[in-house]
Amino acid sequence: MYELGVEYRNIRRVDGDVAARLGSFGSATVHEALGRTGLMKPYMRPIYAGAQVSGTAVTVLLHPGDNWMMHVVAEQIRPGDVVVAAVTADCSDGYFGDLLATSFKARGAHALVIEAGVRDVRVLTEMKFPVWSKAVSAKGTVKATLGSVNVPVVCAGTLVKPGDVIVADDDGVVVVPFDLAQKTLDAATAREASEGEKRAKLASGVLGLDMYNMRGPLEKAGLKYID
Amino acid sequence: MYELGVEYRNIRRVDGDVAARLGSFGSATVHEALGRTGLMKPYMRPIYAGAQVSGTAVTVLLHPGDNWMMHVVAEQIRPGDVVVAAVTADCSDGYFGDLLATSFKARGAHALVIEAGVRDVRVLTEMKFPVWSKAVSAKGTVKATLGSVNVPVVCAGTLVKPGDVIVADDDGVVVVPFDLAQKTLDAATAREASEGEKRAKLASGVLGLDMYNMRGPLEKAGLKYID
Amino acid sequence: MYELGVEYRNIRRVDGDVAARLGSFGSATVHEALGRTGLMKPYMRPIYAGAQVSGTAVTVLLHPGDNWMMHVVAEQIRPGDVVVAAVTADCSDGYFGDLLATSFKARGAHALVIEAGVRDVRVLTEMKFPVWSKAVSAKGTVKATLGSVNVPVVCAGTLVKPGDVIVADDDGVVVVPFDLAQKTLDAATAREASEGEKRAKLASGVLGLDMYNMRGPLEKAGLKYID
Amino acid sequence: MYELGVEYRNIRRVDGDVAARLGSFGSATVHEALGRTGLMKPYMRPIYAGAQVSGTAVTVLLHPGDNWMMHVVAEQIRPGDVVVAAVTADCSDGYFGDLLATSFKARGAHALVIEAGVRDVRVLTEMKFPVWSKAVSAKGTVKATLGSVNVPVVCAGTLVKPGDVIVADDDGVVVVPFDLAQKTLDAATAREASEGEKRAKLASGVLGLDMYNMRGPLEKAGLKYID
Amino acid sequence: MYELGVEYRNIRRVDGDVAARLGSFGSATVHEALGRTGLMKPYMRPIYAGAQVSGTAVTVLLHPGDNWMMHVVAEQIRPGDVVVAAVTADCSDGYFGDLLATSFKARGAHALVIEAGVRDVRVLTEMKFPVWSKAVSAKGTVKATLGSVNVPVVCAGTLVKPGDVIVADDDGVVVVPFDLAQKTLDAATAREASEGEKRAKLASGVLGLDMYNMRGPLEKAGLKYID
Amino acid sequence: MYELGVEYRNIRRVDGDVAARLGSFGSATVHEALGRTGLMKPYMRPIYAGAQVSGTAVTVLLHPGDNWMMHVVAEQIRPGDVVVAAVTADCSDGYFGDLLATSFKARGAHALVIEAGVRDVRVLTEMKFPVWSKAVSAKGTVKATLGSVNVPVVCAGTLVKPGDVIVADDDGVVVVPFDLAQKTLDAATAREASEGEKRAKLASGVLGLDMYNMRGPLEKAGLKYID
Repeated sequence: MYELGVEYRNIRRVDGDVAARLGSFGSATVHEALGRTGLMKPYMRPIYAGAQVSGTAVTVLLHPGDNWMMHVVAEQIRPGDVVVAAVTADCSDGYFGDLLATSFKARGAHALVIEAGVRDVRVLTEMKFPVWSKAVSAKGTVKATLGSVNVPVVCAGTLVKPGDVIVADDDGVVVVPFDLAQKTLDAATAREASEGEKRAKLASGVLGLDMYNMRGPLEKAGLKYID
Repeated sequence: MYELGVEYRNIRRVDGDVAARLGSFGSATVHEALGRTGLMKPYMRPIYAGAQVSGTAVTVLLHPGDNWMMHVVAEQIRPGDVVVAAVTADCSDGYFGDLLATSFKARGAHALVIEAGVRDVRVLTEMKFPVWSKAVSAKGTVKATLGSVNVPVVCAGTLVKPGDVIVADDDGVVVVPFDLAQKTLDAATAREASEGEKRAKLASGVLGLDMYNMRGPLEKAGLKYID
Repeated sequence: MYELGVEYRNIRRVDGDVAARLGSFGSATVHEALGRTGLMKPYMRPIYAGAQVSGTAVTVLLHPGDNWMMHVVAEQIRPGDVVVAAVTADCSDGYFGDLLATSFKARGAHALVIEAGVRDVRVLTEMKFPVWSKAVSAKGTVKATLGSVNVPVVCAGTLVKPGDVIVADDDGVVVVPFDLAQKTLDAATAREASEGEKRAKLASGVLGLDMYNMRGPLEKAGLKYID
Repeated sequence: MYELGVEYRNIRRVDGDVAARLGSFGSATVHEALGRTGLMKPYMRPIYAGAQVSGTAVTVLLHPGDNWMMHVVAEQIRPGDVVVAAVTADCSDGYFGDLLATSFKARGAHALVIEAGVRDVRVLTEMKFPVWSKAVSAKGTVKATLGSVNVPVVCAGTLVKPGDVIVADDDGVVVVPFDLAQKTLDAATAREASEGEKRAKLASGVLGLDMYNMRGPLEKAGLKYID
Repeated sequence: MYELGVEYRNIRRVDGDVAARLGSFGSATVHEALGRTGLMKPYMRPIYAGAQVSGTAVTVLLHPGDNWMMHVVAEQIRPGDVVVAAVTADCSDGYFGDLLATSFKARGAHALVIEAGVRDVRVLTEMKFPVWSKAVSAKGTVKATLGSVNVPVVCAGTLVKPGDVIVADDDGVVVVPFDLAQKTLDAATAREASEGEKRAKLASGVLGLDMYNMRGPLEKAGLKYID
Repeated sequence: MYELGVEYRNIRRVDGDVAARLGSFGSATVHEALGRTGLMKPYMRPIYAGAQVSGTAVTVLLHPGDNWMMHVVAEQIRPGDVVVAAVTADCSDGYFGDLLATSFKARGAHALVIEAGVRDVRVLTEMKFPVWSKAVSAKGTVKATLGSVNVPVVCAGTLVKPGDVIVADDDGVVVVPFDLAQKTLDAATAREASEGEKRAKLASGVLGLDMYNMRGPLEKAGLKYID
């Protein structure tokens, strides 16, 4: 399924401003705006709470226990990118630590999303370099086998193509395909616009039942009230 | 097993003061006072560290991927309640976010306990609205199918009846049945009373072996010392 | 496989200074220095972020749902020890809480590593007594059955012998066998020495590809660049 | 939540003929007839393929690693019963083997459903005594602590009361509450009656799209066909 | 990430003979021939042992707890196809049972691969209609929400495009992309050709060490023999 | 923790007759005879039902995704051995298939126990070469990195030393240490001797309550009977 041993050096990326604005909405709003698709499986967790980032995907395909290609992908990072790393089989090894983070940060990466493990998490937290991963592990890796850079990958159940937008925060990681980025941004903007007013109403004690006119549909669906 | 499509509006609740005092002991002490039963499975985790709450249960039964009844249960919340949400099948979707939290808080809810996912966890943390859940997920839900409100539910392996006391903190979530609330409070109070003195002794270097008179029973059980 | 009902009271321990210096490197560096062995499975997680400890192992073998031997092992703790607790079958009960932590701390223990559950985690966090465990659970235990103290145990997939060095931090828990402690310390020291310079280079934008001279090997391995 | 240390000796049971007829439909049909509730979590698996049983529940509440009450519940078994065993905390130990199976079978039990482990599965398979469990494990248990017999229990996420009907086959385990047994039997009978005709149509190549008149609703929902 | 509410009716398929011949090699050989990529995660298991099938993929995207689109995809099945079903979020419900299997079989489908649950497994086994799934569950589904048919889907960690070849047996499920089908068939054929001779040598007691000339490389790698 | 890159060629083995007789009792009885220790975690499952084997352990330590040492260990197999394979990190790859099985069988191995994946399970089943593993996976491995042969390993939570006895059947895998083999055989023999009589009594309807004289202890423990 994967092309192995290749590195694509020229990829088209979603416009950086669009990516940034998508990020400002957070993963939940963007996921809704995408029609509730594109979310990575919820075992992908941030190494520290509170980070909210977005960026354009550069992808890397790794082999179990081998992080050689992490050094290769570093050269492809441009400011505003998020590195998305997939592995050809389940592996929880720590592919990424403070040295690679120093390099990625120097290249302008916003974050790493990896369906594997990460280490040096205390230092990464101090550096404020956010990582979403499925594990934390002190176990290091070898540098022996070729994978690929900037091929489409499946990461945590979701297809990621180079140049797609990644939005990640405490709620998870959403992938916005290149072709849908502007449309998703518009939908997210519209959705967000109505939220402030709703929040104020709910805070004042108005019920969602009334605000959303749900009482009729509930009655129609047959809800029985028992006093 | 469940009654579907019904909402019970008048439930008896354990006295609010009893619920509050049970909460002051924390889940570990209350669980002991209950004879080591009533604890939800340990995959129920708080979205942020440090919260310790208690309250009377209002329950809601949901379908996978559908949070319609969360709006219905909101109307039944009284100050001091904890909402307990069960789902008819395993689901990690994010049923609850900052808008619903605003509404629940306005109604006086102390917390949400849900055997499913939650989202907007950064905002919920800022709002100090605690949630115990089995997952965090940006994935939203539809509003299409009737469940029930204030029927007995099984949540994370434990039976919860409306009006029972919920005690939740970093160690987990305990359910105290209506009929056992006062008795459990008495037992917890007694248990706690003796802890301060014990702690002081242990801090001074006295061993539990001596404080609890365990050397005799250990010898009787046949413990062999090898020097 | 295990000797049951015995307590070894005289164990040889790795020199405390060696243990302390190993701890200063953290689990990832020590794990590398050990040839990438000795790491406990990554489901062992700290109850709070940021702790980094090391010490000499005293071991205890427990039965499911029974923490009697935790009081027995307390007597064997010397300043600088880390207690390592294994259970004869999978169990997530909370074997350890604030009272035992008070006692362990008074004896000079640096930490607890337990392949089971722990409770009172908020208080333990306030006390700054770190625990690495596979679960958090309010569920308490009985005191009924003999296990053993200071026998070799398997904890989270790794063999631990009394007197071995334990290094634990946010990345996990590594076990350094008695016989390899000095050699591992030397290897870790050598490894660490070169890291500062590398970090500076990477921060300045130098790529690992160049710093590690990887371009030749990548070409030899057949990496194809596609523009 | 549980009453500990009690044994109820007189329970009402659903009529044996109703239980048997429910069993003839299998778990999937009965689950539908119950409004899609009452199914135990799917990690409950049969120890061998092909068994399909039903019966009236006698319940037993066990402690982790302790099967004492299995001998107590044996005395309450009447011909046609299914024993349902819950444990107060997660445990995969083998609580049940060929000796207990011999006893249960002699008492007329149809099956065991246990949220824990079972052993001697080769012999149980030869004896044709079916067990649904969450694990298989050679690990035995002690006989030390009181649980309860014939109290309501939560087993694999579902509430089971003594006398309820249990229907179990390769698809899982369904619990039919005492009060709903006859109504569920009627619904299952009606459901099954229409299946034969449907099967014949589908086998002849008629599509569900046409047999269920789905084309209109699909069009209304907006399905777009792309040639 | 997914296109929702669309059904593609004309897809190109790998030649049926190529698909059949790939199937004859089994998933392990095909996976090797593909460069060790394209394997679904190993939690995908067959409902009965011994089935070995292949076919061209028709895909269906489902929502949690909703199997409406299974009836829609049935119309797109041609003899020799394998239906591959993905769900937009984790779900273990039983989306497929004996009625749908009757219909799929009548249309000429060879198998179903579904990242969710299946039911009626005893009848499916008798019908010899193989299914690879991540769960077995009696829980049925509703028919309420549009998904899609014949769009690319991610199933169990692997991208599947309509018309790709699926090879499935007791070892798992491999996806061969349309463009690589012939090349993979050639590689598998070459690989298989040499296996018979190797098997005979190994059966006669020749060691792989000698047959593969590994002694030199092992010595070079530094293997130490200790007598 | 592990010695890497070494192969011990002369190991002492438990007498073959002792190993065979231990195997005749099965894992559950041997586990009891060992004081309920030595059982591998229950995720180790046989690839087909009904196998019951024993033998003397030869051990092999592997790296993730690399089965080179499987060929090395083959040379150390003597008739009556069971190969026990551990991996330095979690991995579900298929390390072993029909070619290696042919070789192992030709050398006289009774079985393989591996904390990883296996493939070609249909052929292995036809060959009647039993394997206990934690996964089945078509994914193959490389042959690149040195591990070790006949060093002590931790496999599925249990320490295995070369020459120990392995007893494996449908209930799991038990390790009997070299020094305890005869003593365990004696205990198992004694235990088994009394089982036939017990089985006959239970089959005739005698209750374990009476046969084991449990009524007094239950009364003493405070069991309340409610009619």
